[in-house]
Amino acid sequence: MRIHIVNPNTTASMTDKIAAAARVVAGPDTDILAATSAMGPASIEGFYDDALALPGLLAAITEAESAGVDAHIIACFDDTGLDAARALAGAPVIGIGEAGFHMASLISHRFAVVTTLARSIPVIEANLQRYGLDRRCCAVRASDVAVLELEDPLSDARARISAEIGRAVREDRAEAVVLGCAGMADLARALGEEHGVPVVDGVACAVTLAEGLARTGLTTSKAGAYAPPRSKPYLGRLADFAPRET
Amino acid sequence: MRIHIVNPNTTASMTDKIAAAARVVAGPDTDILAATSAMGPASIEGFYDDALALPGLLAAITEAESAGVDAHIIACFDDTGLDAARALAGAPVIGIGEAGFHMASLISHRFAVVTTLARSIPVIEANLQRYGLDRRCCAVRASDVAVLELEDPLSDARARISAEIGRAVREDRAEAVVLGCAGMADLARALGEEHGVPVVDGVACAVTLAEGLARTGLTTSKAGAYAPPRSKPYLGRLADFAPRET
Amino acid sequence: MRIHIVNPNTTASMTDKIAAAARVVAGPDTDILAATSAMGPASIEGFYDDALALPGLLAAITEAESAGVDAHIIACFDDTGLDAARALAGAPVIGIGEAGFHMASLISHRFAVVTTLARSIPVIEANLQRYGLDRRCCAVRASDVAVLELEDPLSDARARISAEIGRAVREDRAEAVVLGCAGMADLARALGEEHGVPVVDGVACAVTLAEGLARTGLTTSKAGAYAPPRSKPYLGRLADFAPRET
Amino acid sequence: MRIHIVNPNTTASMTDKIAAAARVVAGPDTDILAATSAMGPASIEGFYDDALALPGLLAAITEAESAGVDAHIIACFDDTGLDAARALAGAPVIGIGEAGFHMASLISHRFAVVTTLARSIPVIEANLQRYGLDRRCCAVRASDVAVLELEDPLSDARARISAEIGRAVREDRAEAVVLGCAGMADLARALGEEHGVPVVDGVACAVTLAEGLARTGLTTSKAGAYAPPRSKPYLGRLADFAPRET
Amino acid sequence: MRIHIVNPNTTASMTDKIAAAARVVAGPDTDILAATSAMGPASIEGFYDDALALPGLLAAITEAESAGVDAHIIACFDDTGLDAARALAGAPVIGIGEAGFHMASLISHRFAVVTTLARSIPVIEANLQRYGLDRRCCAVRASDVAVLELEDPLSDARARISAEIGRAVREDRAEAVVLGCAGMADLARALGEEHGVPVVDGVACAVTLAEGLARTGLTTSKAGAYAPPRSKPYLGRLADFAPRET
Amino acid sequence: MRIHIVNPNTTASMTDKIAAAARVVAGPDTDILAATSAMGPASIEGFYDDALALPGLLAAITEAESAGVDAHIIACFDDTGLDAARALAGAPVIGIGEAGFHMASLISHRFAVVTTLARSIPVIEANLQRYGLDRRCCAVRASDVAVLELEDPLSDARARISAEIGRAVREDRAEAVVLGCAGMADLARALGEEHGVPVVDGVACAVTLAEGLARTGLTTSKAGAYAPPRSKPYLGRLADFAPRET
Repeated sequence: MRIHIVNPNTTASMTDKIAAAARVVAGPDTDILAATSAMGPASIEGFYDDALALPGLLAAITEAESAGVDAHIIACFDDTGLDAARALAGAPVIGIGEAGFHMASLISHRFAVVTTLARSIPVIEANLQRYGLDRRCCAVRASDVAVLELEDPLSDARARISAEIGRAVREDRAEAVVLGCAGMADLARALGEEHGVPVVDGVACAVTLAEGLARTGLTTSKAGAYAPPRSKPYLGRLADFAPRET
Repeated sequence: MRIHIVNPNTTASMTDKIAAAARVVAGPDTDILAATSAMGPASIEGFYDDALALPGLLAAITEAESAGVDAHIIACFDDTGLDAARALAGAPVIGIGEAGFHMASLISHRFAVVTTLARSIPVIEANLQRYGLDRRCCAVRASDVAVLELEDPLSDARARISAEIGRAVREDRAEAVVLGCAGMADLARALGEEHGVPVVDGVACAVTLAEGLARTGLTTSKAGAYAPPRSKPYLGRLADFAPRET
Repeated sequence: MRIHIVNPNTTASMTDKIAAAARVVAGPDTDILAATSAMGPASIEGFYDDALALPGLLAAITEAESAGVDAHIIACFDDTGLDAARALAGAPVIGIGEAGFHMASLISHRFAVVTTLARSIPVIEANLQRYGLDRRCCAVRASDVAVLELEDPLSDARARISAEIGRAVREDRAEAVVLGCAGMADLARALGEEHGVPVVDGVACAVTLAEGLARTGLTTSKAGAYAPPRSKPYLGRLADFAPRET
Repeated sequence: MRIHIVNPNTTASMTDKIAAAARVVAGPDTDILAATSAMGPASIEGFYDDALALPGLLAAITEAESAGVDAHIIACFDDTGLDAARALAGAPVIGIGEAGFHMASLISHRFAVVTTLARSIPVIEANLQRYGLDRRCCAVRASDVAVLELEDPLSDARARISAEIGRAVREDRAEAVVLGCAGMADLARALGEEHGVPVVDGVACAVTLAEGLARTGLTTSKAGAYAPPRSKPYLGRLADFAPRET
Repeated sequence: MRIHIVNPNTTASMTDKIAAAARVVAGPDTDILAATSAMGPASIEGFYDDALALPGLLAAITEAESAGVDAHIIACFDDTGLDAARALAGAPVIGIGEAGFHMASLISHRFAVVTTLARSIPVIEANLQRYGLDRRCCAVRASDVAVLELEDPLSDARARISAEIGRAVREDRAEAVVLGCAGMADLARALGEEHGVPVVDGVACAVTLAEGLARTGLTTSKAGAYAPPRSKPYLGRLADFAPRET
Repeated sequence: MRIHIVNPNTTASMTDKIAAAARVVAGPDTDILAATSAMGPASIEGFYDDALALPGLLAAITEAESAGVDAHIIACFDDTGLDAARALAGAPVIGIGEAGFHMASLISHRFAVVTTLARSIPVIEANLQRYGLDRRCCAVRASDVAVLELEDPLSDARARISAEIGRAVREDRAEAVVLGCAGMADLARALGEEHGVPVVDGVACAVTLAEGLARTGLTTSKAGAYAPPRSKPYLGRLADFAPRET
């Protein structure tokens, strides 16, 4: 089985970390094809970065579709471009944010999210509400760690994330904690042992969900919201994104 | 990996069908241990059957826990006893109803459920609301097929279920349909091809979710709702269900 | 009028306290028939005890139905088995939890619940949400008093409950407080005077609601969710619970 | 026990019907004191009539308070002035709309409301949402019967109401139906037998709830939303409504 | 364009302040016709004052309608009588509460409300819920300033309001703050500069919304909830409020 | 006052129609600066087009910001890129979808939306839910008119839209109808007269809301969700979108 995991920001070191986390849980017969976006922001922090990450993400999806894959994973916790990717792709598409929320719902009555900067909280809260899983989430907390600090071995990012997890458990009665950034994928297991509650990494969850969809033969419904894009001209710099006749 | 799948009703032929559906999607290194409840109703249709299915279900969970398993699946679409089983078990527990809802949420913007008898609709609607996934579900429909009719090769159950799926697609704008009974597990693929939308079987979904939790090393949080039962005396016929000191 | 009030745990001293609280508010022409469950947990604390309390509860309902009663009251604040009992019984059935919530809604704009252990909070929150009355409830708080401590005259249970009521009034702007355990029935009036807000005991509320339903000639609808259980075989230890032909 | 039931419109014949319905269910030791508003609309149909019915309603509440009563009932299905009356009165106040909704919630999983004119639907829907009970209500339907037609023995009002109840049961899966006007109080029992589902009259429900509050010693919380009106000057025609120092 | 702005309490000094705030934002071709209620409470603080303010408000609306205006503004933050006024008037009607909420929704992701007394919180919360904008509002806070204190130059009202705004920004993550009383209209700009977030005055918002409706030619729909009141007799002191044949 | 209105698709004829509709309602002292996106889809129909419209939209916003404007309007009913534009711009930003929803909420109790293709329904429903205004919207209906058909004088688009409005009024009890596409801006007034209910054009609404914000001196809060984008490198084709130091 071939699973395409795309990092919609342009920081390759983060892609490597994501791919490593994905391969740890992937089944023996699963190939993880990791890609880094070729255009857009070096990290996704808030609504503006989210918007400009979309063309690079969708280009990567198109490329993987022609190569042929069994599923796509969008490795940004904002689930950047998830709906557009589902309309574009034939293979199923999973966001690591939704993956973390759904899996946390299976092992806890109420979970919290610990993310990077406060400006990411509204994106995550809006996603939770759309998915319906805000009813299961008791808090979305920011650790005030910038995404790229997670790539810096000298930063105290881990300590600040751990402190915030502690607050979620004590103050919000969180029974599990979802890590709110792909760049935290390598921290989940150790933080879980440290705090005595499940700490959920969306990347690992997304890989197993992608394998599950592929094995059950389920893919995105093309009736309704995710119908293929209609063929039409696109202008200017994005002309080559124009949907072809289907 | 050993996955315990328990049919909380006492009809062994349904257990066989469930186990077969589970094995189709299970990974090469996964053993499916199927069990049939030893006490209670022959089929679960409404609140009363649900209540009386619980002791048999929980006895099966306890037995499997001592045998040692990596996950439990409750193979009744009502997710009968899910919360109690999570409090009881060390291994994670998944209901086939929630499994179907979560997976359908990954491949459609709105899904419908087609179940057996009208009396099962309130149980399913209440579960969807608790999970938060009522926001994703556009309708819960009954096919007026009794559960045990699904075991009768001569019944027209399949035709009535197919007709109801058609109505969900046309009248409710359902993009995917979740089959609302474990006894329908063998019908999903063919009905999906027939209607041109994903038709989701909760049994298959639950197996891949269980494998996913096991591979990611996630299990039920014991902080809060699912803390182990407190040791106390139980009287009468159920005395042997008394929780032991933990 | 004959009102059957069943304590779904097996602790007779709690039944006596419940019956006394019920008789204080019952009308002159009302007989209170109090019963204690003959099988299952000595106290109900969390999802596992809830599940195993159901057979004993339903057996008591069946017995009272044959004796002939005008209404049933389930005297556990979790409203254990309420839906199953409604499907089973011809006479109306009221849970003391819902009774407290509905009555508190008539005398306050927002109320809080003060219960026993934290593990009971999720059950109560889920009930409030199903009833729709979570919109009226500003907090569900635990006093960290075990149910059976309420039977121990030497415990400081009352002081801890009173302290929690104080917090609900000050910190949650609670205008009324519902006591979240049948074992607290004898404390309501004094705690209300102490805190200057209505303190609501679900047992007393349920008695007057049961009398009200009987006097208005209203009973559980048998169209839909609460249709009588279908006749079918039940196996093993629970064979005698099999519904008879109706 | 003395229960004050006020008809907030100025049609005395409707008050008589309401008082009769109240006395049928009232306990032997309960006096029903029925009052008709002395100022305002002859019937309440929509937001404008609701607004102008308030002074007459509140004047009647004040009068009954000085006479001394154990509870007040507002006999308009819109629960006209319920919040203001609760702030004004020392005795508890119940609206027949909320009374019907709460009691219907105890005997059905989902209920419908059948009211008079379409313009009353928004008032009722807004009340259901505020109470939280919109989650239990599957439809609010209008029978296109004007309130005063209910006072006309020659009208076909009953037939139109019955037809709408039939639609609610068939099309909305309503398990019980609440009659949405005080003027329908005399029809409930017969319509219930006709349709085979509970048909709920808010007047009867309110009487038993009022008796219940009085017997349990519960009254409106004065902490928060229902604190007594602050003393201040009122001008003009309504000067005599100015709250006195408390 | 002629915009009628009515202060539904009887304190003329507050009307002057409201009119001044309105004229600051009104367009060059807009006449602001300010009116003070001729009957009822000197200030509106809680449900009882709200109820008795309605006749004076509706009388003012009727008077302005005959004079001919392009829009009505109800200058009480409770949006007192908004629905009744919409049914009564041909011209559109805007409440300053809803005006503030809608405009705050256009410039912030989540806003808070800072009002006068705690007893006003439930009215405001109920309005937010009906409008749907409770989803955008993170808190409704009371400054414990009585309405008429805002008319007293010697009071420390402004300081207490400012302190509460500070808490909303720090503790509730409010991105904007809506001032919850017409009497605060003159404070918005300065408080906004002080706290570095938009501070919204409902009066100014309502004026621009009223101009907008008039310029786009939109007025209240008369199909459904706001159909003109039906002609019928009104009795007693309020006889002259009886709707005329339309 | 200078208001920048950007058509995020690349079809200039639609921009002309939008600008004309905007100028009809704009005040005498308002300049409408209309812009057409320079890159991306010729029309926006569903999630994929939405995503690829963002760079062109944000480029236009940046350009207008340097030119200096008092407000921005995004003239696509999907409110494409609204959050990103708010984070980017100093001047307030309004989407025509939210503008139509908010204004419709001021003149009706429940409104419907009539849009172009079924695939746009999920985008609109998701927006309504985020704004909270789904509670006010009774239906989102598709007329099966492609966006560019609206530019074709020979198509029967108007007839199909009118038919759908009729269904919304009859079947959904819609009191007002919001036209769900910028390309319908010229049809509102005539369709309103035809159907006897307000028909709302989001473009006109957005212009008056933008003027209102500018006149009240309110602009997007920069505390929280809409903080300016952090300075960071952007790669490849989108490198010039990199946020500058603020």
